[in-house]
Amino acid sequence: MILGNSPIKLSNWEEKLDQSDKIANKDDFFNHAISLNLRNSIFVDNTANELIAKEYSRYLENSIGVVTCNKIAASDLLSNYLKLKNISRKYGSSFLYETNVGAGLPVIDTLNNLVASGDQIIEIQAVLSGSLNFIFNNFKKGISFYEVTKTAQINGFTEPDPKIDLSGVDVARKILILARESGLNIEFDEIENNSFLPDDSIHATDNESFFNSLKKNDSHFNNLLESAEKKNSKLKYVATLKNGKASVGLKEIPKNHDFYNLKGSDNIVLFYTNRYKNQPLIVKGAGAGGEVTASGIFADIIRIGKK
Amino acid sequence: MILGNSPIKLSNWEEKLDQSDKIANKDDFFNHAISLNLRNSIFVDNTANELIAKEYSRYLENSIGVVTCNKIAASDLLSNYLKLKNISRKYGSSFLYETNVGAGLPVIDTLNNLVASGDQIIEIQAVLSGSLNFIFNNFKKGISFYEVTKTAQINGFTEPDPKIDLSGVDVARKILILARESGLNIEFDEIENNSFLPDDSIHATDNESFFNSLKKNDSHFNNLLESAEKKNSKLKYVATLKNGKASVGLKEIPKNHDFYNLKGSDNIVLFYTNRYKNQPLIVKGAGAGGEVTASGIFADIIRIGKK
Repeated sequence: MILGNSPIKLSNWEEKLDQSDKIANKDDFFNHAISLNLRNSIFVDNTANELIAKEYSRYLENSIGVVTCNKIAASDLLSNYLKLKNISRKYGSSFLYETNVGAGLPVIDTLNNLVASGDQIIEIQAVLSGSLNFIFNNFKKGISFYEVTKTAQINGFTEPDPKIDLSGVDVARKILILARESGLNIEFDEIENNSFLPDDSIHATDNESFFNSLKKNDSHFNNLLESAEKKNSKLKYVATLKNGKASVGLKEIPKNHDFYNLKGSDNIVLFYTNRYKNQPLIVKGAGAGGEVTASGIFADIIRIGKK
Repeated sequence: MILGNSPIKLSNWEEKLDQSDKIANKDDFFNHAISLNLRNSIFVDNTANELIAKEYSRYLENSIGVVTCNKIAASDLLSNYLKLKNISRKYGSSFLYETNVGAGLPVIDTLNNLVASGDQIIEIQAVLSGSLNFIFNNFKKGISFYEVTKTAQINGFTEPDPKIDLSGVDVARKILILARESGLNIEFDEIENNSFLPDDSIHATDNESFFNSLKKNDSHFNNLLESAEKKNSKLKYVATLKNGKASVGLKEIPKNHDFYNLKGSDNIVLFYTNRYKNQPLIVKGAGAGGEVTASGIFADIIRIGKK
């Protein structure tokens, strides 16, 4: 890693990093940040790493803001989530993670503004997975579910282990975060996960057996598709929060529903609240990808800068 | 008016106001605010009054934040708009007007976050008028345009003078504000206004002659409707910003367009940017009404409180 108090140029950061003989070490990094003793320090975590997520508390306790697209902290045990929130309040240090849901889309900020201004969340409906969108947008008669998933994996639209996406774990983390920001004190294992996978896919222990199970269960997936098409509906993987309960699962979405025409990596969130009762407040747009995530991270940094 | 430094109860404010013999006076109000010498004062303007809009500068110069749903200041002469922005920066006092466009919807804040984080606005398409939505949603074969407009006026969905809505002035102000927040230095009279009104409606000088002209030009409006229906399209009043130019006007919106199924008082804004290039970032929801506007005002107040 590189430590210093002069800016690192974008033109040669890779070279500089290669030249550095300093082994990455989170304690050295923390101590360096403290020793610089700057007024506006922000710790930015662009990893998906659990160990780095454990670092936030000591930065916040030292009045250093934390900005992160890493979902682990906000979807951790409720006690850890609340602890970070409390530390952030106590030390007046911002803890922002807008990019945890919908990348750069203003989802969490909008939700926070609604709740802070006294509105109550009645229901949230959302499509929050770029990978599952890609898979179900391309799953059509004549192409097997196995083939579509393989293509998604090869093109980098899924995690290297596609079961993380297909099992709904990633989407469940996101609706957990929205539920908590709505004021609900719930744990990850309270989220109802209605899996569309057959049993042997769920229990597959490696990529090869997972893909084999998809191939073997071809008719299972075709049945899901046929059932939706019979009703002039499309398959979408939906997260819901209603009556204090969160759930994720595959749904048949009819024409005229706001989810029906969702393209590419678009995410969409529908907020039904006391004020937006009949027609929801909707945020929609690209919800995955490096550029829009970086944009959301940058917006969070600017939010802290404006304080 | 009532001046004081103790809270005014929601249960008896009307009674208290009736009992007060103090005549409303903006200088007394300003002097009182200054004399209180509080750390977190905010001047909230919920009028649509031009004289009140002229007050903002002296509050901002005294480090008192301004929150307003009054569109007059932000859609005033460019020099006045820029002056307020400069004073706000110079004295570190917030000047927030999220509710100027789309009431409580996060339109201006989202735009500001995009621009501040280095994104560039390529195009904005928006439906921003609750009154024109109501009118064109209810204008169908068998009902004259005159009747629909009259109903809208009687039900309070238009300004008392409905020409303000139908001429597009209100929508033009809103796209002007979005254009300026996008970084364009433009004046109100640079906005192209493609009016759908016939000449004698445009030149009507009072409500009676305006409504008479609508009645007289029945076939003009029916032609607009028939032309749209022939193309399986719906009429929507659209504001556009593209290539540095803003315009407002009636458009024929085809099926599958995001504007097609817009209901009630819903507003919608599509942001096409460098990052949201092919599919826009969309914000949609109720964009008019006391409750959602109050909610947006409150969210702005909280934004200042968090600083």
